[in-house]
Amino acid sequence: MGKDKKLVEAITSMAVDFPQWYTDVVKKAELIDYSSVRGCMIIKPYGYGIWELLQKQLDQRFKDTGHENVYMPMFIPESLLQKEKDHVEGFAPEVAWVTHGGDEKLNERLCVRPTSETLFCEHYANDIESYRDLPKLYNQWCSVVRWEKTTRPFLRSLEFLWQEGHTAHASEEEAQEETLRMLNVYADFCEEVLAIPMIKGQKTESEKFAGAKATYTIESLMHDGKALQSGTSHNFGDGFAKAFGIQFTDKDNKLKYVHQTSWGVSTRLLGAIIMVHGDDNGLVLPPAIAPTQVAIIPIAQHKEGVLDKANEIKALLSQNIRVKLDDSDKSSGWKFSEQEMKGIPVRVELGPKDIEKNQGVIVRRDNREKIFVSLDDIETKVQEVLEAVQKGLLEKAKAHKDENTFVATNMEEFEKIITTTPGFIKAMWCGDEACEETIKEKTKATARCIPFEQEKISDTCICCGKPADQMVYFARAY
Amino acid sequence: MGKDKKLVEAITSMAVDFPQWYTDVVKKAELIDYSSVRGCMIIKPYGYGIWELLQKQLDQRFKDTGHENVYMPMFIPESLLQKEKDHVEGFAPEVAWVTHGGDEKLNERLCVRPTSETLFCEHYANDIESYRDLPKLYNQWCSVVRWEKTTRPFLRSLEFLWQEGHTAHASEEEAQEETLRMLNVYADFCEEVLAIPMIKGQKTESEKFAGAKATYTIESLMHDGKALQSGTSHNFGDGFAKAFGIQFTDKDNKLKYVHQTSWGVSTRLLGAIIMVHGDDNGLVLPPAIAPTQVAIIPIAQHKEGVLDKANEIKALLSQNIRVKLDDSDKSSGWKFSEQEMKGIPVRVELGPKDIEKNQGVIVRRDNREKIFVSLDDIETKVQEVLEAVQKGLLEKAKAHKDENTFVATNMEEFEKIITTTPGFIKAMWCGDEACEETIKEKTKATARCIPFEQEKISDTCICCGKPADQMVYFARAY
Repeated sequence: MGKDKKLVEAITSMAVDFPQWYTDVVKKAELIDYSSVRGCMIIKPYGYGIWELLQKQLDQRFKDTGHENVYMPMFIPESLLQKEKDHVEGFAPEVAWVTHGGDEKLNERLCVRPTSETLFCEHYANDIESYRDLPKLYNQWCSVVRWEKTTRPFLRSLEFLWQEGHTAHASEEEAQEETLRMLNVYADFCEEVLAIPMIKGQKTESEKFAGAKATYTIESLMHDGKALQSGTSHNFGDGFAKAFGIQFTDKDNKLKYVHQTSWGVSTRLLGAIIMVHGDDNGLVLPPAIAPTQVAIIPIAQHKEGVLDKANEIKALLSQNIRVKLDDSDKSSGWKFSEQEMKGIPVRVELGPKDIEKNQGVIVRRDNREKIFVSLDDIETKVQEVLEAVQKGLLEKAKAHKDENTFVATNMEEFEKIITTTPGFIKAMWCGDEACEETIKEKTKATARCIPFEQEKISDTCICCGKPADQMVYFARAY
Repeated sequence: MGKDKKLVEAITSMAVDFPQWYTDVVKKAELIDYSSVRGCMIIKPYGYGIWELLQKQLDQRFKDTGHENVYMPMFIPESLLQKEKDHVEGFAPEVAWVTHGGDEKLNERLCVRPTSETLFCEHYANDIESYRDLPKLYNQWCSVVRWEKTTRPFLRSLEFLWQEGHTAHASEEEAQEETLRMLNVYADFCEEVLAIPMIKGQKTESEKFAGAKATYTIESLMHDGKALQSGTSHNFGDGFAKAFGIQFTDKDNKLKYVHQTSWGVSTRLLGAIIMVHGDDNGLVLPPAIAPTQVAIIPIAQHKEGVLDKANEIKALLSQNIRVKLDDSDKSSGWKFSEQEMKGIPVRVELGPKDIEKNQGVIVRRDNREKIFVSLDDIETKVQEVLEAVQKGLLEKAKAHKDENTFVATNMEEFEKIITTTPGFIKAMWCGDEACEETIKEKTKATARCIPFEQEKISDTCICCGKPADQMVYFARAY
């Protein structure tokens, strides 16, 4: 029992210290490890397994919407990065610079890509000639580097894994359609696969991407009431096209600039999964991205027939489910703790008495419900329970978001909410950056987005009292 | 006809200028493009599609042999790179150095990984405590950077995509088993999927990996008679373990060093596919890694019923085959050239007269054989032809390798062969590095490997005449 206790005790409670709870889960669930490289993480097999499942399913959605994968160089020459003015201002302060190749000093510094707009633009300028070459619907899976001062696993690190879509279109309308299409692909994916509900909306001017005409975002609410920007989709208009000279001959034989978009999500989504679904026993994974969906844990496995039966059930379930049988020599209490810590959605307990009765015990990770089931029906029942967990997690997350979404009509209310019950705050905003800035200074809450689904809360800006016709979601954010 | 001619004429013949033919194919088949980043390539959708299929199938073989994927940082601090003496000597001259993060000069330079042994070792030193933690069977898919002076797409570039396996074991025997297991996984994969026969063997001391106890290799023969090192697997013994302090408590309660291996293949394999199977009409892809396996090309598609039938056949074939229907407004001659250039293994021609007779014409890319087939049987027949192409390509490549593998018993023979009919040369070697060096200087041929399948050609070294009991494969190599 000593060992079991150690594992359980090792986690700080969410209520006591949320950031520490997060760090504990990330380490104890064996998602990542640290290395001697400041701000970079090692993604361990279990963490990478989640990323692979996420990547596979998201990639399929990209392909289903006509996108193709490519690979661009990881280096960007300084002169290329500088071609689009806003873009270089946004990124230059936070890039890693390569100055030497072997012993030789380079004539021109290269930065390690913080994002690849400039490389895609250069390629498009070479590759696009006619309207027949459009649209270009490219995506890239890679790692990028941003020289952050403070870092946290998955949420903010010097290097992280992501995908970046980059598209070029013949018209403004098409580019706008694509921008919103991909935002919807992200939002649907997050709901259907990660079981995380998203607020969709547009970023304010001050929060938009460096070089974009408009940035759209999906925002989710973590367990501690802070928001997480979970994915963005940008409409570049023809700004980059003009800076890089990306032109095509249209059907009317006129030379025109393309309209572009880009969109990305990253390993940050793993941070969202942890902070939306996790609890004081560790990680809780939605079955759709759980590397192991079911852990079979034999009880008194030394007794005759137990392991045989467990292996039989494993073989049966393995046909359509990702199953592991824990037949190690640890105690079953220890195995339960481990399965819970790793967030395996369902465990099947199987002991000598169960086998005598031709039954198994299914235990849900999310709510610890125990279900006794005949071994004849176990495959169907486990499948049903997995679906119920996937659905249940989304409902729970939706309820949490709804319960922690508030309305404020004046700054007093706003400040009271943010200090007592942090969450999303819906409030009216006049559109003035000064008000956005004032709210941020006073409350540390930022404008997360101007949601597509608008409500008329009042007629006036929560900050300055002038007429306002936009409702904004505010929150403190990661 | 003008457009068609242009496409065909654009390729240099192999016989006239093999390197130019290679560059032409790589560009015209739309595998890659160049960028302003010296020595780095853009892998375009068609090239990346091949890599994705290769990756997927190889990854499955890694998982089937118990390996797990992880992700390590892309940066290595200079002090970490220096921990293993031979390793740093081998790699330091060809790494890219990051010296600045944003505006700030770093206290310690970071190199962009040329390979990740040092990072895995550091992690293993932290993570391994007991024999229960062994073996560690990790793999990583990523890009690496080596500061090469001269570069060629896929064959040698500053940055390339690869996988690197890194494993740690409790015993010397286990590490050796793993080293050879993975070499066999590579060789089988290359034969069964890429249709490329491999010579398996050990590298000589002078050709082995920096820091390894022994390096094993798979070597293939290109169409021009030059060899290509296609994959390597290294046994590190306990050298890295001692340098990094990777110890574990064994069952006998004693503290021991682990034994390690690493193994890798890269986008270089795409170069092998091009140079083994390609011909004067362009790329020829084995069906197993062809992004499009079948191109349906309608003839006189403006005629009633042709496109309808073509779409019907497409839907039928798409169930189990990667099919594209080219219904663009290009001429069918142009479409044929394009399908051949891109190496699509099979095309199905479908014209009004064929449809009248309820038939289609299957044309093999590899030997241009035409097969008339009833549309009732087309799915089965296309499947059969794809299998025949896959098999045929391997047989052809085997025949080419056998025909271009020679025996030399003295240096005169050796030099004559290498200048008139380049290929593999089997010759005896005494084991002295001086002889290896002399042969290289005189003939530009290097010892590719000491093959597992030995033959006794003579009793004496081809170079010095002293007693020799090892047969070596020599060749000029990429």
